[in-house]
Amino acid sequence: MSQGNLLYAQSGGVTAVINATACAVIQTCRRRKVGVFAARNGIIGALREELFDLSGLEAAGTAALRHTPGGAFGSCRFKLKSLDADRAHYERLIAVLRAHDIRHFLYNGGNDSADTSLKIAQIARALRFPLNVIGVPKTVDNDLPVTDSCPGFGSVAKYTAVSVLEASLDVAAMHESSTKVFVMEVMGRHAGWIAAAAGLAGKRADDPPHVILFPEIAFDEAAFLARVKATVERVGWCTVVVSEGVKNADGRFLAEAGTTDAFGHAQLGGVGPFIAQLVKTRLGYKFHWAVPDYLQRSARHIASKVDAEQAFAVGKAAVEYALAGRNGVMPAIKRVSSTPFKWKLVPVPLTTIANVEKKLPRSYITADGFGITPAARRYFEPLIRGEDTPPYNAKSGLPEYATLKLKLARKKLPAYRIADK
Amino acid sequence: MSQGNLLYAQSGGVTAVINATACAVIQTCRRRKVGVFAARNGIIGALREELFDLSGLEAAGTAALRHTPGGAFGSCRFKLKSLDADRAHYERLIAVLRAHDIRHFLYNGGNDSADTSLKIAQIARALRFPLNVIGVPKTVDNDLPVTDSCPGFGSVAKYTAVSVLEASLDVAAMHESSTKVFVMEVMGRHAGWIAAAAGLAGKRADDPPHVILFPEIAFDEAAFLARVKATVERVGWCTVVVSEGVKNADGRFLAEAGTTDAFGHAQLGGVGPFIAQLVKTRLGYKFHWAVPDYLQRSARHIASKVDAEQAFAVGKAAVEYALAGRNGVMPAIKRVSSTPFKWKLVPVPLTTIANVEKKLPRSYITADGFGITPAARRYFEPLIRGEDTPPYNAKSGLPEYATLKLKLARKKLPAYRIADK
Repeated sequence: MSQGNLLYAQSGGVTAVINATACAVIQTCRRRKVGVFAARNGIIGALREELFDLSGLEAAGTAALRHTPGGAFGSCRFKLKSLDADRAHYERLIAVLRAHDIRHFLYNGGNDSADTSLKIAQIARALRFPLNVIGVPKTVDNDLPVTDSCPGFGSVAKYTAVSVLEASLDVAAMHESSTKVFVMEVMGRHAGWIAAAAGLAGKRADDPPHVILFPEIAFDEAAFLARVKATVERVGWCTVVVSEGVKNADGRFLAEAGTTDAFGHAQLGGVGPFIAQLVKTRLGYKFHWAVPDYLQRSARHIASKVDAEQAFAVGKAAVEYALAGRNGVMPAIKRVSSTPFKWKLVPVPLTTIANVEKKLPRSYITADGFGITPAARRYFEPLIRGEDTPPYNAKSGLPEYATLKLKLARKKLPAYRIADK
Repeated sequence: MSQGNLLYAQSGGVTAVINATACAVIQTCRRRKVGVFAARNGIIGALREELFDLSGLEAAGTAALRHTPGGAFGSCRFKLKSLDADRAHYERLIAVLRAHDIRHFLYNGGNDSADTSLKIAQIARALRFPLNVIGVPKTVDNDLPVTDSCPGFGSVAKYTAVSVLEASLDVAAMHESSTKVFVMEVMGRHAGWIAAAAGLAGKRADDPPHVILFPEIAFDEAAFLARVKATVERVGWCTVVVSEGVKNADGRFLAEAGTTDAFGHAQLGGVGPFIAQLVKTRLGYKFHWAVPDYLQRSARHIASKVDAEQAFAVGKAAVEYALAGRNGVMPAIKRVSSTPFKWKLVPVPLTTIANVEKKLPRSYITADGFGITPAARRYFEPLIRGEDTPPYNAKSGLPEYATLKLKLARKKLPAYRIADK
């Protein structure tokens, strides 16, 4: 029996560096002479037998993936339920893999994807289909357990810290007669990792950001307003970073868009303007607010070099794990030391990853709940080190991002309909 | 009589490259052996006799200004009224200049500042105080007449085009099961220059942005919704760029924060979420929206090299004009050719600049009102060319922005009170 082919699929929100992982997967497969496919739009494409055949993908385009944001093959928000509830989906998936002689499945995502990967490994065993399932870590939320950090996070962290630094220089220049309070909303549904990274912008007392609002700390309106007022009176102005996931003492999000995504999570957005309006109403200060939204997680132009390297490394390791016959594991980043920063990859069981969310440790948040501690700095700082600037086109002034000519593999099975969500 | 000293002041919203202008002013004064001061927080500091004495400023810090965003000496939103209405202010200003032997005044701002500069030149003449007043162009809005572009604009244009490109790659990857419509709000109170620059992100048909909403085109809800629907049905997803200044057919802003700035302009913000919600309500598509706000005009990390060079050049020219005895002029950028891009500086009378707003030409907007034309591309493209990346700190991973030790000159006059605004 041949070693079979490998299928790579992206899952959930994409990042500035997930395509670096894809690049490593393709390049490693080629070097190891393994056929490589990518599912179109993640698991949905796998079910529909929409598989991009990457065998003929030109080398230059593949290499350009390393510095291209977004998800080159498409991702999805689609969660397979239990083996009982979604039995037909799982069986279809195995049929698709079998039809294309796929013996290695790499699922590049977060906690939900780790859970799905485990179920796929389980059904493959039940159906006696030899399959190596490898989870590949990715999430800007940085909320996977076990791994020191998640590829994608370092870059959004760098974007956020640089943006807070730059916008605060603007506010500092204008505060005498204009904006006194600047509010920036950042991503992080349940964990304050991105909000905490914003704290790297400041080094000394009274450097911005002056206030960080974390999902881990219940919002205390009176304490917050007192802090903003004291900062404006002492410094002249105040920069506030607020995580989209901030909740009040009752556990309710401060601002909810009222809609939910495919996983049943509330779709958030708007806590930035909410906080800014609160400051205006209660303290009377002129304000501005920013919500960078997708800009923060797609900002490949300001990616962290460490993050891009880790994203590439996990892709390469995942292929090697699969070809070595490992199953149900994920390459996790293990920090060997912070100073100097050293790390290595180790295989960890997906059972330790699936459905577990890693919260920001309380020890990373100052006692008053509004800032980050030296321990947090030691953790975060190495992750945003180094630049990995994409090539720019001299004429257009824009980054040269990959535009791949992708080709779907010929279908071998009858069409399969996924019920509309 | 000596050649006297020079006072430099920043006015209005700051930019990613206004400090490059300041850098050029200081370096040129030093080379020409002219004493140089900067007003703290713009004209407000000049009235209060708060003048930073830049004679002793260290060379490294001065050089670092070239790549530092924000306004190093502070700016302000404070408009002097007519000579009659604000006579006391104008006389005080001349008294301050006289006390510090300032014979050259450089005012770095937009249309309002050009108007103020003219009035200062007029009162100096009336009071027989020999003073050369030079306007120095600056505004992210790019709405000054005569000059080909305004320093500060090229960098926000580059930031905007790159951000739209990157965020759209994210949306493209997610659209199958998540966000279908992404809305990004950009600055531009009355003119759609920044919105138009976003159009540079797309090269071919169906490249993002798919819809641009300009202040110059009255918002037509039905046509907009039809365009978004057709785009989603054809492409699968849709990126919309909306200028903060978009108005409906009655000339009212689509979304107003309800407050006004010091000039009586309505403080805008929130048209992005407004448009996104409209799409959701009327078409039912999942959406995300971004409002980068100050991030766009302070993003020195992605500054345009052409813009940074022009910002530096106008500072140098302004000093040279003043020392040559010119008065009431501004260095304007004259485009010699687009291909290859060549430009030079020419002195133009401030009377041609003051209070005139340059609108985006209708010929830059496609007939349907939702995109940019090839003529627009020829104009915009050279302005975002080249990168001028700031140095980064290897340990912190952040740009090394200037932190100056500024020293106020000893006051020579009694205190002066500016009525609270």
